[in-house]
Amino acid sequence: MKKMKNQITNAISDFFFEYETPRQVLVRNRRVGVVCRLIQLGVLAYIIGWVFIYEKGYQSTDTAVSSVFTKMKGVGYTNDKGKERVWDVADYVFPPQGDSSFVVMTNYIITEGQSMSKCPELPGKHNCSSNTDCEGGSFKRTGHGQMTGVCVNTTKTCEVLAWCPVENDHIIPDPPLLISAENYTLFIKNSVTFPLFGVTRSNLVEGIDASYISKCLHDPEKAPLCPIFKLGDIVKLSGFNFETIAKVGGAIGIVVDWTCNFDVDVRHCKPKYNFHGLYGNPTETDKARASVGYNFRYAKHYLEDKIQKRTLFKVFGIRIDIIVQSLARKFDIIPTLTAIGSGVGIFGVATVVCDLVLLYLLPKREFYKNMKFKYTDTHIQDPDSEAGSIETEVSKK
Amino acid sequence: MKKMKNQITNAISDFFFEYETPRQVLVRNRRVGVVCRLIQLGVLAYIIGWVFIYEKGYQSTDTAVSSVFTKMKGVGYTNDKGKERVWDVADYVFPPQGDSSFVVMTNYIITEGQSMSKCPELPGKHNCSSNTDCEGGSFKRTGHGQMTGVCVNTTKTCEVLAWCPVENDHIIPDPPLLISAENYTLFIKNSVTFPLFGVTRSNLVEGIDASYISKCLHDPEKAPLCPIFKLGDIVKLSGFNFETIAKVGGAIGIVVDWTCNFDVDVRHCKPKYNFHGLYGNPTETDKARASVGYNFRYAKHYLEDKIQKRTLFKVFGIRIDIIVQSLARKFDIIPTLTAIGSGVGIFGVATVVCDLVLLYLLPKREFYKNMKFKYTDTHIQDPDSEAGSIETEVSKK
Amino acid sequence: MKKMKNQITNAISDFFFEYETPRQVLVRNRRVGVVCRLIQLGVLAYIIGWVFIYEKGYQSTDTAVSSVFTKMKGVGYTNDKGKERVWDVADYVFPPQGDSSFVVMTNYIITEGQSMSKCPELPGKHNCSSNTDCEGGSFKRTGHGQMTGVCVNTTKTCEVLAWCPVENDHIIPDPPLLISAENYTLFIKNSVTFPLFGVTRSNLVEGIDASYISKCLHDPEKAPLCPIFKLGDIVKLSGFNFETIAKVGGAIGIVVDWTCNFDVDVRHCKPKYNFHGLYGNPTETDKARASVGYNFRYAKHYLEDKIQKRTLFKVFGIRIDIIVQSLARKFDIIPTLTAIGSGVGIFGVATVVCDLVLLYLLPKREFYKNMKFKYTDTHIQDPDSEAGSIETEVSKK
Repeated sequence: MKKMKNQITNAISDFFFEYETPRQVLVRNRRVGVVCRLIQLGVLAYIIGWVFIYEKGYQSTDTAVSSVFTKMKGVGYTNDKGKERVWDVADYVFPPQGDSSFVVMTNYIITEGQSMSKCPELPGKHNCSSNTDCEGGSFKRTGHGQMTGVCVNTTKTCEVLAWCPVENDHIIPDPPLLISAENYTLFIKNSVTFPLFGVTRSNLVEGIDASYISKCLHDPEKAPLCPIFKLGDIVKLSGFNFETIAKVGGAIGIVVDWTCNFDVDVRHCKPKYNFHGLYGNPTETDKARASVGYNFRYAKHYLEDKIQKRTLFKVFGIRIDIIVQSLARKFDIIPTLTAIGSGVGIFGVATVVCDLVLLYLLPKREFYKNMKFKYTDTHIQDPDSEAGSIETEVSKK
Repeated sequence: MKKMKNQITNAISDFFFEYETPRQVLVRNRRVGVVCRLIQLGVLAYIIGWVFIYEKGYQSTDTAVSSVFTKMKGVGYTNDKGKERVWDVADYVFPPQGDSSFVVMTNYIITEGQSMSKCPELPGKHNCSSNTDCEGGSFKRTGHGQMTGVCVNTTKTCEVLAWCPVENDHIIPDPPLLISAENYTLFIKNSVTFPLFGVTRSNLVEGIDASYISKCLHDPEKAPLCPIFKLGDIVKLSGFNFETIAKVGGAIGIVVDWTCNFDVDVRHCKPKYNFHGLYGNPTETDKARASVGYNFRYAKHYLEDKIQKRTLFKVFGIRIDIIVQSLARKFDIIPTLTAIGSGVGIFGVATVVCDLVLLYLLPKREFYKNMKFKYTDTHIQDPDSEAGSIETEVSKK
Repeated sequence: MKKMKNQITNAISDFFFEYETPRQVLVRNRRVGVVCRLIQLGVLAYIIGWVFIYEKGYQSTDTAVSSVFTKMKGVGYTNDKGKERVWDVADYVFPPQGDSSFVVMTNYIITEGQSMSKCPELPGKHNCSSNTDCEGGSFKRTGHGQMTGVCVNTTKTCEVLAWCPVENDHIIPDPPLLISAENYTLFIKNSVTFPLFGVTRSNLVEGIDASYISKCLHDPEKAPLCPIFKLGDIVKLSGFNFETIAKVGGAIGIVVDWTCNFDVDVRHCKPKYNFHGLYGNPTETDKARASVGYNFRYAKHYLEDKIQKRTLFKVFGIRIDIIVQSLARKFDIIPTLTAIGSGVGIFGVATVVCDLVLLYLLPKREFYKNMKFKYTDTHIQDPDSEAGSIETEVSKK
């Protein structure tokens, strides 16, 4: 028992009082020296310069969870055949509650007083010459209603059960009816939280207070942090022409970019606003513009003389998606040591490369081989015990 | 001063003209050789085959920011007690503006002509035998309104101030009223941007142009890139039965999967569409189906004889969530070198394992130990200076 | 030909029957031994304790794609100047279809019977003394309509073409009209899918079945998994005062946190619910509260005596954003071996540090230098061939 304890104590003291370090050959050769040192310096420069300084490999990264609220302001005015009206925010924003994705109406086709009844389809939609062309009870995917089986003589189209009169959307108003939308303003409120670092930021950063907001207007150069945007500016900055997009509609992404470095003061973490068209962008190189424009239909229902009626709007508008993109970085011990550790590995590769040069390419390669390697025997047989003992004798002397 | 300069120059030239390489023992032993070479080859195969080729460890990855627009088409038809009507897109899609998450109405319970007044609760909702059972001014969480404190004799339920008559949703129409929803079509427009690689793609990829879209219909085999989907197909592909889901409602996720490799041409980056039920999926193994079905209520308000009234809809529908899932990869020098570097580290581990075999398991382990190690002294004392000098003499000869 | 084949066979057999292992000096020195062993043990402790056990470096991570549905329940009651009415879910939730982001109305300013006509602006909005102050046809960003160019004498404000009478939102009802919103309940349905691990989970985990849901109410201590939340509790847990937020509105984030370890049974993967104010939070340290409160406007349209009218609501409410945050971990061979590999690299750094101590700081550093290094020559010249041959003779003996 005591003996075993002694043995363990000895083993532990052996372990702690010993230290192994590899024996090395110091090759004094200009050519090899310069080549290998340059390779090693290159690796070192890569690790320090590229991985650490340029790519900030000593930092861990995190993306944020975010929430976005929006609020439009401004009044539009239309004069449609002498009928003046104004459009306020309750009229032109869909949905009304300030989502991060919404549509601002810029043009529309209105079909008033629709009621459920039977009427002929639009010319061109479903032409017919006799009742046999209109199968009763069937639908057409792009039609307005269910066919009754009757071909209407006056229009030469099938009769349908539908909201009548059916909408005629062949002619899109040009210029767009709500061209005044250009002057609407958009206010964006955005809050981001980086859960890994426990940091919460709002786009109303230091200095963007109520009095500043009440009078500022976003400008990429002069007021890059002002969260109030003119719709016309948004469209222009995303590369569109306002009149075009207002006529047929379009989609614009406002990217709020939070690229932050939390190794410096959190005050420097500020949003950047970028604007780009999502579809049908004139700068888009691929031809995937099969379906430009943006529109949808909605209806206002009412009761007239006990009959349910509706006013149908085909709304053309600018769809705005607020897209929050975030990447925060902060010093962390794990990526730092992983980078150092794998850097040491790359160093090892550099050594292997130099060794290959030394042992296979230099004229005196045989000499270096003998310096570097000790052979247990030279004849691929069991080692000569004598050789071993002599060597060890020398070592132990 | 000059001396110091000289010293620095010497140190630098020493540094550049010298090169260290570890001295090694070349063990000529079949068993050790085969074992260790196999371990080393295994590590090499893992690094090259698994990390590099299979897991593409030489690439960095990025996820996309995306935006999705949708558009439904099609007309529904109901014949409710002889009252025919059709339902177009302005009637059955919520919200109307083409969001990535929306509901298609497939069934409904309609309660027409509600006005603010007093009426008895539904049988079963809040039974009573006398006024004392109905506390005036209080609410029941699942009730329809505020109790007036009166027990209505005819129904034996409490009277409430509510939108009257209260909705009776005990009986869900079966078969679903809008079973024709099966033929509606859904058009998905999706744009993704990979900020790290600066690539923007749309699901209208090369070859999916306006003329193709006007006539195609998505089919997993024949037309996997067509962005127009039949609602019935979506339901079937997600594993549901259309009639069941149309009756009580349900939720389906359409996953647009962008798994792209930007080391090849960007044209090969194409979306894949997958469909799966989000709740109450018949293939779901866990029993977490406490609350299947999907429904919500909304109201249309109108004025009749100067009295504000509303038509309440309890809408059962198919909720569709377009979920964009993205992962792009591209060659990057940092992950490549990190993988190589840590691979070299693993190689080091292999060497340690082989050394353990060599030094502790082989019969001639003592011989190999002597070959590998040079001892500074053998008595755990301060090293014998003589031994050192002899060794160094030999080395320097 | 045969000779070449022989050579290749020899090379391969050489490769397989040989094994190199570095020669090492075993330094028996207490000081160096203890220092270096401690450094090495420290590195080992860091790799095993920190990287593996604490940071779980042997696991790969994934975030989820998720979908969220919500459903509010409860009835509100207002008594506005003797006019009693109740508010049900179709009245107070925007949008109605159960999105992950929605607004619950808690207060409102109602402007009934607006029609398109001409009326004076609000006092304070656009004051004037004569018609010249009101430029006809122009707008004011914060105004209600288009100016007609007339200054109204009675109010001393410009006349506008607008929805008249214009809304007066100077006085916000206090206490909030729908203070009873405190008792509404919110039901959250959340499904998450971790694509990398192929796991789908729902917040209705094992044990949360229909009968439990029908009677439970979320409580952070007693019922942390119940998915039914009282609105008043949500507000309290997020650090707000209900009456304040109900009056002017506010925004609350409900974070559903899925932090899962799939190395243990998937049943242990359960959601945690956290609540925090998104803006104007009393615990927020930065002063970015330029714009507290949350409100939006929407209108109900109707026809009265053939004239289109609307009832405008300025809605103050609690905006609730359900934010799903997810991080799953599972054992994976790649991060494990990367961690080991870079750990070995760090070990190499430890060896370098010890060598520096050994070779530059110890008194007998020259002795150790000679033990560790073998010099190809001592005069920074081309190596003396004799020295080399003697050494190799000794090695080969």
